[in-house]
Amino acid sequence: MLATVIHDARDIRVENVPDPTLSTGGDAIVRVVAACVCGSDLWPYRGVVPTSEPHRIGHEFIGVVEAVGPDVTSVAAGDFVIAPFYVCDGTCVNCRNGVSTSCLHGGWWGSDDQVGGFADGGQGEYVRVPLADGTLAVVPGPVTEDEIPGLLTLSDVMGTGHHAAVSAGVQPGDSVAVVGDGAVGLCAIIAAKRLGATTIIAMSRHADRQALAREFGATHIVEERGDAGIEAVRALTGGIGADRVLECVGTKESMDQALRSARPGGMVGYVGVPNGGPELPVRTMFNRNVGVNGGVAPVRGYIDELLPDVRSGAIQPGKVFTLQLPLSEAAEAYAAMDERRAVKVLLRP
Amino acid sequence: MLATVIHDARDIRVENVPDPTLSTGGDAIVRVVAACVCGSDLWPYRGVVPTSEPHRIGHEFIGVVEAVGPDVTSVAAGDFVIAPFYVCDGTCVNCRNGVSTSCLHGGWWGSDDQVGGFADGGQGEYVRVPLADGTLAVVPGPVTEDEIPGLLTLSDVMGTGHHAAVSAGVQPGDSVAVVGDGAVGLCAIIAAKRLGATTIIAMSRHADRQALAREFGATHIVEERGDAGIEAVRALTGGIGADRVLECVGTKESMDQALRSARPGGMVGYVGVPNGGPELPVRTMFNRNVGVNGGVAPVRGYIDELLPDVRSGAIQPGKVFTLQLPLSEAAEAYAAMDERRAVKVLLRP
Repeated sequence: MLATVIHDARDIRVENVPDPTLSTGGDAIVRVVAACVCGSDLWPYRGVVPTSEPHRIGHEFIGVVEAVGPDVTSVAAGDFVIAPFYVCDGTCVNCRNGVSTSCLHGGWWGSDDQVGGFADGGQGEYVRVPLADGTLAVVPGPVTEDEIPGLLTLSDVMGTGHHAAVSAGVQPGDSVAVVGDGAVGLCAIIAAKRLGATTIIAMSRHADRQALAREFGATHIVEERGDAGIEAVRALTGGIGADRVLECVGTKESMDQALRSARPGGMVGYVGVPNGGPELPVRTMFNRNVGVNGGVAPVRGYIDELLPDVRSGAIQPGKVFTLQLPLSEAAEAYAAMDERRAVKVLLRP
Repeated sequence: MLATVIHDARDIRVENVPDPTLSTGGDAIVRVVAACVCGSDLWPYRGVVPTSEPHRIGHEFIGVVEAVGPDVTSVAAGDFVIAPFYVCDGTCVNCRNGVSTSCLHGGWWGSDDQVGGFADGGQGEYVRVPLADGTLAVVPGPVTEDEIPGLLTLSDVMGTGHHAAVSAGVQPGDSVAVVGDGAVGLCAIIAAKRLGATTIIAMSRHADRQALAREFGATHIVEERGDAGIEAVRALTGGIGADRVLECVGTKESMDQALRSARPGGMVGYVGVPNGGPELPVRTMFNRNVGVNGGVAPVRGYIDELLPDVRSGAIQPGKVFTLQLPLSEAAEAYAAMDERRAVKVLLRP
């Protein structure tokens, strides 16, 4: 089959790789209908995270189950499924606590599972899915073509934006500032509105993303950064800062922006993979009682809650895919995201 | 009148100072019935925080109102009152948001208020209280002698321990680990039990404090620190760590202990004034979805909730005062706390 392999910084290739096979009894083979490139895939693409040897890449996909192992009970051949960006059993104590990203038996796409099988990367024609019962979410009934982008966002970005909002404790009537106008930040705007926020401030400098932000529910746009950005947020929030701030970037600068944009007693929900700043300034947090909550988003557990709103069109996160390409053009997909020519790119095997 | 002045590290003196006078219309003069030494007073005492010139010290006191300015409406001469460890108006947006420590018009004992008057330190015979309506909490009815220690804890340590528990989101049935066996840590145990925690792990190495911890509700004691301490906490919590961890020290080591003692998806409530470690390790938090919430505790807002339980004896935080001394022996009070001969020292003017 064909699958995407990263060889080095800015060296993305679609290559022939071995077809996956069932091996553990609890696994499944999924034919990928759509996959995509994640902002976090850009870290190795840009060489920020070094690539020591070629490896599969991609962790967001939806598709149709081709075959299941004999122990699988909740997924069957022919089912349309959403895969979260990680593997989880759904039954361990961490999964039961709602933190399936810390599953005791889980793992990550493009690497070996805990019992010696290989879980393919998501940007390919097929994927072997370990722990299929816990990992895969079935989408009932016929799935139409125009549902594909929205469903694919439940694999990562919509659930991750929702996690930022949930972690920050967004309540009806809250003022919310969103730092980051990538796909996750835009989905965080959707999530904040969905949870009842009435003032939603998108911090964005790009006209195309500002337009999407407004379409998704942003009531205000702030283009400034640093002290000027903080002043602008305060001017929109009675002089004190936002009740909740959703940090969707992951740099030291973006976290500083988030912490200082929150009001005293406010909370920052953060989902940007920390990169470039290893530590948080505790005094900035302590003196003003600004909390920080979030992390790698347990999106598997959010699919059940968000799926009805995506299918009904009540929320339309699929609009973050501003470009669609065939899988064979994966390299161009990375380049388009790297150069910010696209918010997020959908790949079709 | 007599009041305590810090001249330099380990140089605490009780001196004659000017009697306070009403000046702003909204202020009050309180005759101090009892005051105490705070763990944070030990930072300047030990020279960790330098003392550039002699100044008043002490921020926890209770007493009887002697006189009020013409604008004061909720407090009257003769009232028994509790002062929180800071000044607040109770009406600004931050006070209304429950973060009275960030009061827009507030201030700190032992320094000038925002309109040019001086707010005396708490360790003295009298204190001029700015913004008396917002700052002072009246204790109704006659106050008996044996109520004094418990009421005094509402000035800081009981409310601060409660803030750690509230910030961590302690719920009925939770497992809670408490890092720190000072007065605040011990009060955090009381707070965790009061909020319904069923497993309460006190991290303590001192037999006298362990005994108090058990009396306050600790179900387990862990003496180990570092990796061994974390393993011990996990062994008591199904292998994953505590649902909530209350950090009541403020050093880099204690925060590391707290973050790593929490389970995936858990929350650290922290109230120890950060000292010795300016930053938090964000990757440790992000990868396991461990949040951090808390800060300088808005104890004024907690007095109404906690006062009935203190007066009824349902909780007995006054037991943290293991030594009582006359105000004239303030220097000995500091030494006793510094040398850990006392958990907390009550001073009687």
